[in-house]
Amino acid sequence: MINFRNDYSAGAHPAVLEALCATNMELTPGYGTDTYCQEAAEAIRALCGAPEAAVHFFTGGTQVNKTAIGAYLRPWEAVIAAETGHICVHETGSVEQDGHKVIHCPASDGKLTAEIIRSVLASHSGEHMVVPRLVYISNTTELGTVYTRSELEALHGICAEQGLILYCDGARLGSAMDAGDTAFAHYARFCDAFTIGGTKNGLLFGEALVVTNAALFPFFRHCMKQQGAILAKGRLLGVQFRAVLKDGLYLDLARHANALARRLTGGLRAKGVPLLVDSPSNQVFPIFPNETVKRLEEQAVFEVQQPVDSGHTCIRLVTAWNSAEEDVERFLALL
Amino acid sequence: MINFRNDYSAGAHPAVLEALCATNMELTPGYGTDTYCQEAAEAIRALCGAPEAAVHFFTGGTQVNKTAIGAYLRPWEAVIAAETGHICVHETGSVEQDGHKVIHCPASDGKLTAEIIRSVLASHSGEHMVVPRLVYISNTTELGTVYTRSELEALHGICAEQGLILYCDGARLGSAMDAGDTAFAHYARFCDAFTIGGTKNGLLFGEALVVTNAALFPFFRHCMKQQGAILAKGRLLGVQFRAVLKDGLYLDLARHANALARRLTGGLRAKGVPLLVDSPSNQVFPIFPNETVKRLEEQAVFEVQQPVDSGHTCIRLVTAWNSAEEDVERFLALL
Amino acid sequence: MINFRNDYSAGAHPAVLEALCATNMELTPGYGTDTYCQEAAEAIRALCGAPEAAVHFFTGGTQVNKTAIGAYLRPWEAVIAAETGHICVHETGSVEQDGHKVIHCPASDGKLTAEIIRSVLASHSGEHMVVPRLVYISNTTELGTVYTRSELEALHGICAEQGLILYCDGARLGSAMDAGDTAFAHYARFCDAFTIGGTKNGLLFGEALVVTNAALFPFFRHCMKQQGAILAKGRLLGVQFRAVLKDGLYLDLARHANALARRLTGGLRAKGVPLLVDSPSNQVFPIFPNETVKRLEEQAVFEVQQPVDSGHTCIRLVTAWNSAEEDVERFLALL
Amino acid sequence: MINFRNDYSAGAHPAVLEALCATNMELTPGYGTDTYCQEAAEAIRALCGAPEAAVHFFTGGTQVNKTAIGAYLRPWEAVIAAETGHICVHETGSVEQDGHKVIHCPASDGKLTAEIIRSVLASHSGEHMVVPRLVYISNTTELGTVYTRSELEALHGICAEQGLILYCDGARLGSAMDAGDTAFAHYARFCDAFTIGGTKNGLLFGEALVVTNAALFPFFRHCMKQQGAILAKGRLLGVQFRAVLKDGLYLDLARHANALARRLTGGLRAKGVPLLVDSPSNQVFPIFPNETVKRLEEQAVFEVQQPVDSGHTCIRLVTAWNSAEEDVERFLALL
Repeated sequence: MINFRNDYSAGAHPAVLEALCATNMELTPGYGTDTYCQEAAEAIRALCGAPEAAVHFFTGGTQVNKTAIGAYLRPWEAVIAAETGHICVHETGSVEQDGHKVIHCPASDGKLTAEIIRSVLASHSGEHMVVPRLVYISNTTELGTVYTRSELEALHGICAEQGLILYCDGARLGSAMDAGDTAFAHYARFCDAFTIGGTKNGLLFGEALVVTNAALFPFFRHCMKQQGAILAKGRLLGVQFRAVLKDGLYLDLARHANALARRLTGGLRAKGVPLLVDSPSNQVFPIFPNETVKRLEEQAVFEVQQPVDSGHTCIRLVTAWNSAEEDVERFLALL
Repeated sequence: MINFRNDYSAGAHPAVLEALCATNMELTPGYGTDTYCQEAAEAIRALCGAPEAAVHFFTGGTQVNKTAIGAYLRPWEAVIAAETGHICVHETGSVEQDGHKVIHCPASDGKLTAEIIRSVLASHSGEHMVVPRLVYISNTTELGTVYTRSELEALHGICAEQGLILYCDGARLGSAMDAGDTAFAHYARFCDAFTIGGTKNGLLFGEALVVTNAALFPFFRHCMKQQGAILAKGRLLGVQFRAVLKDGLYLDLARHANALARRLTGGLRAKGVPLLVDSPSNQVFPIFPNETVKRLEEQAVFEVQQPVDSGHTCIRLVTAWNSAEEDVERFLALL
Repeated sequence: MINFRNDYSAGAHPAVLEALCATNMELTPGYGTDTYCQEAAEAIRALCGAPEAAVHFFTGGTQVNKTAIGAYLRPWEAVIAAETGHICVHETGSVEQDGHKVIHCPASDGKLTAEIIRSVLASHSGEHMVVPRLVYISNTTELGTVYTRSELEALHGICAEQGLILYCDGARLGSAMDAGDTAFAHYARFCDAFTIGGTKNGLLFGEALVVTNAALFPFFRHCMKQQGAILAKGRLLGVQFRAVLKDGLYLDLARHANALARRLTGGLRAKGVPLLVDSPSNQVFPIFPNETVKRLEEQAVFEVQQPVDSGHTCIRLVTAWNSAEEDVERFLALL
Repeated sequence: MINFRNDYSAGAHPAVLEALCATNMELTPGYGTDTYCQEAAEAIRALCGAPEAAVHFFTGGTQVNKTAIGAYLRPWEAVIAAETGHICVHETGSVEQDGHKVIHCPASDGKLTAEIIRSVLASHSGEHMVVPRLVYISNTTELGTVYTRSELEALHGICAEQGLILYCDGARLGSAMDAGDTAFAHYARFCDAFTIGGTKNGLLFGEALVVTNAALFPFFRHCMKQQGAILAKGRLLGVQFRAVLKDGLYLDLARHANALARRLTGGLRAKGVPLLVDSPSNQVFPIFPNETVKRLEEQAVFEVQQPVDSGHTCIRLVTAWNSAEEDVERFLALL
């Protein structure tokens, strides 16, 4: 079966698994206070050019989003997000569960702009309304689109000007960096906090939170513990990130996934298949007649994104570090 | 100064104040367990034709909305509301503060429909998304529009069919009943819970919550106390509601306010002033050139609703049980 | 029937009611932004010798406790309180509902000490435990005991030293000031925030929150609104506090209540009735044989505090601004 | 260095790691909907003799406690726990963060009894107090003590009688079963929900929640997602539990840890070292003169439990599935 279901269907990249096996019987202090986590954090700081940044490791994306946003905001403060944002749709209201409104902004390509943020601010004033305080973006977005360096810088500009916290959910940060013109250091410079996603790029699990705004440092580990987000054998996260950050493996894996996605896109375009959105990264959104979708489902695994009209459906094809080139060719051959 | 700022600028209707004075030195048990509250609740049940309904008294609208919604929902459940709904905009995220997402629905006239609700339900499924469970409507709406009896019945239909709770914020319920074709009994029949607003219709303060769905009864007073929403001298609420529900005073007061608003509307229309929305109730939304607004502000008190375009602004004129006919004439004469 | 049930069984002192009647038909801006609230706040600042203090008005005690504590604390921060404290026992877990642990400290007389606080701090460290941050005291306490000026100062000392917020619940502050050696200015000097209780001392309802720590000022009204704690006709609170603070009426009312309580205490002692606690304020806790309690209940209204042993019960007698001297004599004559 | 720091210092038992490696490159659906999780759940149901039980997998103990308690309780409901309980002390107030009071009960051996529960119930009534609803126990307790089968049954009796939920935190359930007279089936019969701890007994991470009370089933996975507690590559949990539940490995590992602890205890007793508590499981709490503790720290790793008096300190020694017999002998030789 051709499998483009998602980028977290397999286990870990062999180098990651090997590192876990090699360190398995060591005895280390718990909760991420071990040397592996320190080394991984150091490696991240170096890649980011941010020697003072705080780095924390989590087991999953919803967990890190919820913990960070809950820790950073006061009860009356709210989040600004594109209505397609992961926290708006697919995290079961976890930000609201911790008490904060998420202001959903229409954004056809899944991306926020300074203009959108300004308009939210303009419509909020006085004690009868929440105070927008944190801007949540995801890169790549849930539609596979990518913020450019100058777009990031523009968001940084409005946030700095307006006293907003810029938070980037980098569940697919590797893919975003490979597909666009950004590097780790740009996120460190332009965001107050961002995550480096490991789960979707070769780890068994793991998201690293990088925080450069020192005002957000105090008592953060208290919040992590309160949210059940400190792993007892925390070193497992350090060991994995250390393995994948060595020798550029993290970007290599993303590059592979993106390359296959571009192939898919090229092949679909060549066959005249319309795409929901122009995605340069590892998620592709072709639109097919409903019967075609049914037929494809017999030989390939993928998710249905949304109905487009009564006769057509958009599906989502995701390539990953472990996807095979043949699968791309086989899928295109089905059409 | 002509005053159309809102319907809670004055104190209480004389009959209400008199009742408070007459009972002032009596000694009664606290927290609403007194006979005045029992009598007021009885009067409400009688008006509603709902002898089994639970009735609770609150001091304010945000308080009752927050307490009821927080009590009725489980952590994963969400509210469906028109994006103009009071809880969406002007209650500082109080529903989210208690952990629940509010799904904002576009609705140009401030009213939800079965179709809107169906579309929300259709787009929510699976454990990665919240479960829509409570439908919040306000009558009159924040735009002065009014649900008809058959519209209420249709909402009841979809809610009963889909296992949703229908909650009506009746901060201006008197105005809605006078302006439309509904009576207390329709709310009791079609809603699981609704409020009868006193603050905006002649009381010093007070909102009565009427609950007809017995599944929502248990432990509700625990929630009230937890939310700081049980008034120590609870009888003050009973005494006031008892006074205003006697001899139809509640509806008389709303009728007066609506009548003056209709006059205002008629006068404005006669002068060719465009209105933002066609409101049959005690809120009127004329659109004026910006200079006119500035000029009016010198002789009248009102709130600015929203800019319409660079040269025009919509203002809000609210009439109340204590508004004077002369003020209507004087305002129209200013134009 | 003799009535010592509590100090909120009657309505308002005549002077308060008169003020409400006199201002009833005035039109003022809502939400406490009117001149009556400003004047009442000014009067409080003057009494406190705290010209920069923030003053906010609430309708009830649980409401103000919950709102202030919820606004002041971050998610990982906790409250230190005597286990008899009102928030520990009789507010249905409202502080926990907003996310904060309340650390219950044994305190046989209902009072915290620097030593108790130090021992709580000593047993809390590291990210696996909450961070104690706010010290909640009530004066008078729930047992009728009273903090002296030097005790308050000592609490202030430890709090200042340890970066803790000292919050005093003054639901019966008048009684505490009359029974002890403190005045408004001491609370302003030694507490970061405290309340002046009106509900139990002659108002229909009303608690004033006085905040002297400027770090606690920002966005507080947002929290009030979010908690449903801004009264639409906010002036009702200003009008009442203004009336009761004029010419020392507030303290006069407390003095009357305390004097009657002292008489009760004297009479009980003269008859050899044991008392649960030595209370100098308006709550008295005599212990009677169970049969005596039953007999007394036929002619007097009061609450049972707690069983003491299988044959004896402690009851609570509360005197108020409106209690009659004859009732004291009649009660003692019953014994 | 001798290491008795805790039972989660090493990675996974070789058989567990092997299972992870063997399945690493398989492609499976995410979020625990794979066949490995189904098989592990089936194995647990079989061991428990509870074919209808729901089984959910989590990455950590705080996470499962928080998610289950938050899902099961309504806002006004509270938890009864021994004051030494993990949720009372070392989870940074995570239960309170989700809105629920935890009632701390003194219990010198860390165990609740029906009598303690009855006394909590007796002191809670009316809407001004929380409603105790869930009884939290841990087995083994945080002091290493163990509930017997008849003690569990007695707790079940009072809970069933009073409508309480009995929840057992089994972070060290293997150790409890080996040290006492209980088996999986007793927990399934006597508890509404309990956990089977993997992290402290040979897994990289993993706690299985077993729920037998069907009233607690609905929408639980929504709560898991909302709490950030669904692992994307959920199969990792299924694979590990499947490995450790095969051929009785889970109990074998606990048996090893307990046996070493008994040896330690025997050796300490032989040398006249007093113990804080009589623990039959894998945590041992000897009391030493402070100087001895300092000396021991040079050659062994362990945690300080608490000071006992000015000259003596209680330390905690934890043995694990991977502890070496020689370490026990070496430690005893140090004395």
